[in-house]
Amino acid sequence: MEIAAPYLMFLGDVPDDLAAKTAHGIVDWRPEWCLGQLRLPGCRADLKIPDLTVPEAAERGARTMVVGVVNAGGVLPDHWVPVIVAAIEAGMDIATGLHVRLGDTPAVRDAARKHGRRLFDVRHSSQRFATGKGTKRSGLRLLTVGTDCSVGKKYTALALEREMRARGFDADFRATGQTGVFISGRGVAIDAVVADFISGAVEWLSPEAADTHWDLVEGQGSLFHPSFAGVSLGLLHGAQPDAFVVCHEPTRTNMRGVKHPLPAIADVIDLTIRCGRLTNPAIRAVGIAVNTQALGEGEAQGYLDTLAADYKLPAVDPVRFGVGEIVDRVAHEFPQAAPQDGRLARASA
Amino acid sequence: MEIAAPYLMFLGDVPDDLAAKTAHGIVDWRPEWCLGQLRLPGCRADLKIPDLTVPEAAERGARTMVVGVVNAGGVLPDHWVPVIVAAIEAGMDIATGLHVRLGDTPAVRDAARKHGRRLFDVRHSSQRFATGKGTKRSGLRLLTVGTDCSVGKKYTALALEREMRARGFDADFRATGQTGVFISGRGVAIDAVVADFISGAVEWLSPEAADTHWDLVEGQGSLFHPSFAGVSLGLLHGAQPDAFVVCHEPTRTNMRGVKHPLPAIADVIDLTIRCGRLTNPAIRAVGIAVNTQALGEGEAQGYLDTLAADYKLPAVDPVRFGVGEIVDRVAHEFPQAAPQDGRLARASA
Repeated sequence: MEIAAPYLMFLGDVPDDLAAKTAHGIVDWRPEWCLGQLRLPGCRADLKIPDLTVPEAAERGARTMVVGVVNAGGVLPDHWVPVIVAAIEAGMDIATGLHVRLGDTPAVRDAARKHGRRLFDVRHSSQRFATGKGTKRSGLRLLTVGTDCSVGKKYTALALEREMRARGFDADFRATGQTGVFISGRGVAIDAVVADFISGAVEWLSPEAADTHWDLVEGQGSLFHPSFAGVSLGLLHGAQPDAFVVCHEPTRTNMRGVKHPLPAIADVIDLTIRCGRLTNPAIRAVGIAVNTQALGEGEAQGYLDTLAADYKLPAVDPVRFGVGEIVDRVAHEFPQAAPQDGRLARASA
Repeated sequence: MEIAAPYLMFLGDVPDDLAAKTAHGIVDWRPEWCLGQLRLPGCRADLKIPDLTVPEAAERGARTMVVGVVNAGGVLPDHWVPVIVAAIEAGMDIATGLHVRLGDTPAVRDAARKHGRRLFDVRHSSQRFATGKGTKRSGLRLLTVGTDCSVGKKYTALALEREMRARGFDADFRATGQTGVFISGRGVAIDAVVADFISGAVEWLSPEAADTHWDLVEGQGSLFHPSFAGVSLGLLHGAQPDAFVVCHEPTRTNMRGVKHPLPAIADVIDLTIRCGRLTNPAIRAVGIAVNTQALGEGEAQGYLDTLAADYKLPAVDPVRFGVGEIVDRVAHEFPQAAPQDGRLARASA
């Protein structure tokens, strides 16, 4: 998997920015790779980067058009096909995180073949996995879990990687979703793996390592989401985390895509520990990461302070205030893997 | 999916009868379809039906050779291929529940093409599914869950179907594994579904139904099995059972294929209710089904009596003593779906 940058970000005509979270994530973490966005009439997402046509992007050197959106069921709408074909004809590879394979659409397949371009279906790993064994592996692991989908699990893991590396920790982000794979250039889209191999794929993704090494494993879904909890549980068992961070969005009323209310953070902590003990009896919570975008800054800080007091855990907004407090806690609880001065230095506010 | 009977049961050279549980299940429930078994040198499984060569089976009218064994990772060993090709050349279709597709082995694919025979990969559904919604559906559902893999979940669900139908209930077995699909001629091998669609596939398998109708959904794995718990949780959420039966094997020390001990039945009941409430707040346990094969009859009955007293639930061995007591409990707890005389009549001991 080597997707060539720079990218033209294709958003189609998705109804909101949450549906473009893949594209937003790539722009957040790799802005230098994202030349511009291509939006169709009716598109309600906006990456706040230049709008480019296919010829304009090609002229600026775009090497891959990234279909950076998700939609229900992951289908490829018919009216997106002409733009994808045009990008291929203009010399770009195409990369998507959709459930369907690009090559299943004849016009796309034929254009790629004719013009010698590559089609990347990030959700479709050709990697074969074994079933999970649940055996304890060396090295340390942190998993981000959530009260719902789309509450910042990837962002938090990436922010932890950045902060920990800046402090001298030996830490690697481990991608389990398409956006993370686009950002880190490796990983596995865990929700696309055959069900029998969920935990086995995560064991492959996060192998044995030095005792001072941290894998920061991107979580998926929620143990409380009726569509995806199976993925979340297999991921938890395969990651066998020593530590986990709960991610949350306080203004959301329903879980994404269904009618169920969000669980309490306390319930997420409790069920994560209860189930996680199966493969790591020492599992513990080390922080809460909240997306406070919908709150004012004072309100956000007050909310975080209350959470911190209630749960006796650092509670941060990774975007607004950084993840420094969580890294402080990690350094304190796992001193064997903290750099000499890592308990004090703070790379971000 | 229409697999033609009668069958020749191919066991390869698997090391024990547990690895041949698919074949055993088919023989148990469809003995009239199973003409004989074909075993390679070193095979430690035995279906207690006639040993037949390929020519003998063909002469007796076998229409399909069923590769009725599972092995780690589901691969097709090279030294099984000549026998499979010989069966095709003798006029049989081939059906397997292995993870690999028969057609991925060139010699098998070519022989099937040349002789016009069909290859059934029961684990590979061509059916497309939606993601699960978790919305409550009409009709009643019972799920069999387990302390481990291979503890009688399929057998119990089939025994319940037989007993309930004999008493006049409107009840259907719903297969979620390859053996069940072979036996019932329909269903979905849930562990072969893409992870994102586990609960959605079960919602498809067990659709809305009359208020007096029971779906008896075959469980898979265990919420406590580090390899497969994700499948079990997605199945639980998708099945949204009103009732569940815990299946157990009391002499097993380790969970199948891993080093973990078996959970307590109490823990299985507790976690099943806790997680199952997400899609059905009224979920309740209605019985315990134990495989007491390793115990003497008196010892078995004593063990079941103790369980029944401890858990205040009917505790039975479906093979030895039938599932009548569990059906009594179901009729009592859900009188709206019980036939007029179903609370008293007992089809099996």
